[in-house]
Amino acid sequence: MFSRIFNPGFADTDALGHINNTVFPYWFENARIEIFKLFTPDLDPKKWSLILAKIEVDFKAQCYYGTEVEVKTFIEKVGNSSFVVLQEVIQNEILVAVGRSTMVHFDHDSQKSEHLPPVIKEKLLNHLKK
Amino acid sequence: MFSRIFNPGFADTDALGHINNTVFPYWFENARIEIFKLFTPDLDPKKWSLILAKIEVDFKAQCYYGTEVEVKTFIEKVGNSSFVVLQEVIQNEILVAVGRSTMVHFDHDSQKSEHLPPVIKEKLLNHLKK
Amino acid sequence: MFSRIFNPGFADTDALGHINNTVFPYWFENARIEIFKLFTPDLDPKKWSLILAKIEVDFKAQCYYGTEVEVKTFIEKVGNSSFVVLQEVIQNEILVAVGRSTMVHFDHDSQKSEHLPPVIKEKLLNHLKK
Amino acid sequence: MFSRIFNPGFADTDALGHINNTVFPYWFENARIEIFKLFTPDLDPKKWSLILAKIEVDFKAQCYYGTEVEVKTFIEKVGNSSFVVLQEVIQNEILVAVGRSTMVHFDHDSQKSEHLPPVIKEKLLNHLKK
Repeated sequence: MFSRIFNPGFADTDALGHINNTVFPYWFENARIEIFKLFTPDLDPKKWSLILAKIEVDFKAQCYYGTEVEVKTFIEKVGNSSFVVLQEVIQNEILVAVGRSTMVHFDHDSQKSEHLPPVIKEKLLNHLKK
Repeated sequence: MFSRIFNPGFADTDALGHINNTVFPYWFENARIEIFKLFTPDLDPKKWSLILAKIEVDFKAQCYYGTEVEVKTFIEKVGNSSFVVLQEVIQNEILVAVGRSTMVHFDHDSQKSEHLPPVIKEKLLNHLKK
Repeated sequence: MFSRIFNPGFADTDALGHINNTVFPYWFENARIEIFKLFTPDLDPKKWSLILAKIEVDFKAQCYYGTEVEVKTFIEKVGNSSFVVLQEVIQNEILVAVGRSTMVHFDHDSQKSEHLPPVIKEKLLNHLKK
Repeated sequence: MFSRIFNPGFADTDALGHINNTVFPYWFENARIEIFKLFTPDLDPKKWSLILAKIEVDFKAQCYYGTEVEVKTFIEKVGNSSFVVLQEVIQNEILVAVGRSTMVHFDHDSQKSEHLPPVIKEKLLNHLKK
């Protein structure tokens, strides 16, 4: 599990007074950096080998301005060439949102998906949610 | 079906050169305004009666800077107190992303979901994707 | 003068109910695309020759959700290697914000500013605010 | 001086590979929370008494993905009813941007600017940049 802390900004609120839904995909991508590093340790975009196939966010409770959130990042499922990242947003000990993102190992030259390298697969499996 | 045009901004690109995934939930929410108006015609946040339970985005193709996108908004499913909005992002005649958002009719005073008013239900059904 | 229309999104509001200040620099950059095209007609980032030295936004009036804004883009001043873009946000015939951005013609290889090509300088001067 | 740490997100990069200019006003507003608390300790939007008159950002150096930034928040100048917040973004010990924001103490009922309360004025002066 990887953990990252965010401080919601005033700009992240909306007219209903809570953190707007569009902020969560940002936090989730931001917190997936540790997953990105497994594939591209120096984070050089020219060597990027992941594409995002799908994102989902389940909203469980209101999220507020003025208090930090923790985003926990797990792996939910590992396939041959893709895997699912499971993420949780926690604020004041309350689970406010759950995110899932399906990432595909991808060769930008051939424009095709590729098997996950065994070494990386093993690292991903170390972060499975129990 | 409702349609809204967006011009991706340079800030919407990322280091891979395409429109970043986090922009799509913004476009989708922005384009749901016509749905919001069915519930709150004057868009006054104090009278808001919708909450967002879930969003999903399926990424189908790369989305580029420099050319407009059209977001088409349909209704996919209508339940007793909730409904699913189906949205498509089209750029240069290519379907680049599909979004789904589950919205719940909600009474902020009692903090409970509420049946959809029949008049609104009928209006939603007029926008079902065929 | 170049003109671009934006529809503020619900996500662009904040807890005070208006469009948040951080949205304006986004609109301004988005609307500068016609300036970018003078320097890089195909908008290819590898050929980019502009850097942004400074931005300013003066807030004149509240900006609201539910009604479109027009962003007007002018040139305020042209120097040897830099120029100032002047932009106005208008909503319901009210000037809600004025933006200025100082852009520098820049050679990414030598990492130095460069004189504006005379042909582009002339085109910029065509858009001077009178 | 107040200090807040941010981790730039992949979504914050643009096609030139660096952190996009529109991210800075977000960081600056986010980091002004300690200033907001001087006026509205519980951050309740209904009691808000500040409006933003102007923002400026001077870009000094490229800002990169993959490394945290520190935003330092100072007070530059205090007037009768307004004050200027000075902010610096530092990454890898390099000053990458300087921000200034002019805030006005404002009474939303009368829609007029108001003198800064002496107690708050004193607190602001404690954060003057030396």
